Amino acid sequence: MTAIVAVDTHDIRFPTSLALDGSDAMNPDPDYSAAYLVIRTDAEDGLEGHAFVFTIGRGNDVEVAALDTLRGHLIGRDVEDLLADMGAASRLLLHDSQLRWLGPEKGVMHMAIGAVVNALWDLRAKRAGQPLWLHLASLSPEELVSLVDFRYLSDAITPGEALEILRAAEPGRAERIARLQETGYPAYTTSPGWLGYSDEKLERLCREAVADGFPQIKLKVGADLDDDIRRLAIARKTVGPDFPIAIDANQRWDVADAIAWVNALAQFDLAWIEEPTSPDDVLGHAAIARGVAPIRVATGEHVQNRVIFKQLLQAGGMDVMQIDATRVGGVNENIANLLLAAKFGVPVCPHAGGVGLCEAVQHLSMFDYVAVSGTMEGRMVEYVDHLHEHFVTPTVVERGRYRAPSAPGAGTEMFPASIAEFAWSAPQMVAR
Amino acid sequence: MTAIVAVDTHDIRFPTSLALDGSDAMNPDPDYSAAYLVIRTDAEDGLEGHAFVFTIGRGNDVEVAALDTLRGHLIGRDVEDLLADMGAASRLLLHDSQLRWLGPEKGVMHMAIGAVVNALWDLRAKRAGQPLWLHLASLSPEELVSLVDFRYLSDAITPGEALEILRAAEPGRAERIARLQETGYPAYTTSPGWLGYSDEKLERLCREAVADGFPQIKLKVGADLDDDIRRLAIARKTVGPDFPIAIDANQRWDVADAIAWVNALAQFDLAWIEEPTSPDDVLGHAAIARGVAPIRVATGEHVQNRVIFKQLLQAGGMDVMQIDATRVGGVNENIANLLLAAKFGVPVCPHAGGVGLCEAVQHLSMFDYVAVSGTMEGRMVEYVDHLHEHFVTPTVVERGRYRAPSAPGAGTEMFPASIAEFAWSAPQMVAR
Repeated sequence: MTAIVAVDTHDIRFPTSLALDGSDAMNPDPDYSAAYLVIRTDAEDGLEGHAFVFTIGRGNDVEVAALDTLRGHLIGRDVEDLLADMGAASRLLLHDSQLRWLGPEKGVMHMAIGAVVNALWDLRAKRAGQPLWLHLASLSPEELVSLVDFRYLSDAITPGEALEILRAAEPGRAERIARLQETGYPAYTTSPGWLGYSDEKLERLCREAVADGFPQIKLKVGADLDDDIRRLAIARKTVGPDFPIAIDANQRWDVADAIAWVNALAQFDLAWIEEPTSPDDVLGHAAIARGVAPIRVATGEHVQNRVIFKQLLQAGGMDVMQIDATRVGGVNENIANLLLAAKFGVPVCPHAGGVGLCEAVQHLSMFDYVAVSGTMEGRMVEYVDHLHEHFVTPTVVERGRYRAPSAPGAGTEMFPASIAEFAWSAPQMVAR
Repeated sequence: MTAIVAVDTHDIRFPTSLALDGSDAMNPDPDYSAAYLVIRTDAEDGLEGHAFVFTIGRGNDVEVAALDTLRGHLIGRDVEDLLADMGAASRLLLHDSQLRWLGPEKGVMHMAIGAVVNALWDLRAKRAGQPLWLHLASLSPEELVSLVDFRYLSDAITPGEALEILRAAEPGRAERIARLQETGYPAYTTSPGWLGYSDEKLERLCREAVADGFPQIKLKVGADLDDDIRRLAIARKTVGPDFPIAIDANQRWDVADAIAWVNALAQFDLAWIEEPTSPDDVLGHAAIARGVAPIRVATGEHVQNRVIFKQLLQAGGMDVMQIDATRVGGVNENIANLLLAAKFGVPVCPHAGGVGLCEAVQHLSMFDYVAVSGTMEGRMVEYVDHLHEHFVTPTVVERGRYRAPSAPGAGTEMFPASIAEFAWSAPQMVAR
């Protein structure tokens, strides 16, 4: 038997607030952080499962405490058993009724469970010698369906319907894998658009984004309408009339404000409005979608689980689904989300950036292309050029496309030196 | 200046799973627990603010970690300033953008913020020499409105509408205070209905509930339909044809299952069906409400915040609102919830039981009666006869009614001996 012998956790924080990287209407000073997890076994292969929850600073210690409390579910377990049935592995954690009380299926504890699930997938993909996207795309429709917890979903999608979607995408998998390996997957960039940047920096970064081959840019909005109009005018002038510009309000508005504000910016021909209001407000998103049409509503980076995603689709409140790799219950729940999107015919354009989110979520979009939706049409993964240097197998984005990862694993392993250098210690943080 | 000098936290767990107290379809073996908080100041009065988050065992340490991380917002602050503007005090915590990322406004971090807010209210009521319900009911409509964070609520209720509701209830406050002090507030009991109890124990406890003067009982359902039918038949026969029996599925079902199962039990003349499905599923609750009418749908103990409550009301998915004292952002957010219920004309029948939930939430219902809804009609607070002995000012329930508390504070202070005796230490727990 090969057993899990250790679950190491790390509180890692990068002082990104010093440069206003990542500043938006709701998050003026994020310190991009990772509640980081390493699962080690007694196997001779020495392979480890690495994953993390992305946070923006304070509270990262609470997320680490949640990871620590899951250790008891892992130590001593037979790794072969656990990895052979990842549906059961996920349920082992999600169905712990005492832990479930802390959500249920939302917030700190749910994200911690997601990180454990993701670390197990990283380990499994490494053992299979495959990058995660290819590993997932090699599973049968039946295996994929077995990964999903359909509880609370059956009024929107049944296991049978999920199977149909996956079977319909089976022909052509090999061809799509080859195409991905050849041409990669579309990326769009948020780098120009942070609120804290000067107009000159905005203009320069817009110019660079176009020159770099990105098919879309995104600007943060929602702090001040006059500023938004000025910044969008600069961006529109810089990128030209036909280049897609999305905007992102980071939950800043109530429903009526969202509709009025977005319509005041509609003159700039917007690709989508992202997070116009609370991520919990399904009915609010639906009202906003009606009020700002034909501008599309995008959301998802803070959507807590598949139950909210389901309703956003049912209510017509989400035209673009933005899954996040570390917000929900890991790869398994994101497969549920991808299936829901496919069922409702909504494109998935994942949230990324932060630290390691690009590395993690690219695998899910590539898997979606090969085995679920079967298309890249209207799909792209967010890209922000931050902190990739800390990862053993960083994303490679060239000419506006993510190169398909070839290294085994989920891409979420940081260098030991980075973990050590940015290990957080409370007194320093208080002093800042 | 009077400053906060200490924030003590405690991980307290009662081994309730040993007796199957609190067993239901989703929570077979809860260990009722409290992530407990004491705010101390350098004032000569020696008064402290006590509050807690209720959990059911594992993960209580994570909740304590969340309380610990809030300490930095409190130590050294001027208590007079903080308590004088409790709206600002609440926003100080809720609007910490880095901590907000961990929810937003849900789960472990949100409940921890709620506990700090509640501890500050406990301290404030003690300093005022009033029980919390009376203290809140003594505030002006303007002061009460200033406590509420209306963000994400304005499509359902505006500050102006809230003010109207509160002003309409101003006449008669004194009379209602006198009536409460004289006759108390209705309680209903869940003690007979835990799934783990034998039929004999169920029958005996039903008989006792009627004899004790409770106006309603509640049974847990949802594990096995035949068992539910047998147990409801026993209960109905025992309490007689006209006595209200509510049922509680603790989120066990998907939408279609809920409708079918509840309709199969409709023969027993049910007062409400509680938590038929995921607390996140607004549209699901609305579909269930349509499918089981005229049986009412009740929910709320796991509703994460005011945004979900708002939508449950907007969508017609909740006929009875069951606020919980420690699930949301404390007294302030529960005032928002009470105002929403008043706006939509839905009765509030709080969730209680656990450890200390009766002690805490009775104050909110009594405040609602005096200053918001102005009525007890169709209202009652859940009561479970567990663990009250650990509180300095325990609830007193007589002839099916909560006696109005007269001791200053929020009722949430445990005896030091109980805190010490049930302090959790990890190795013992692992050994169980």
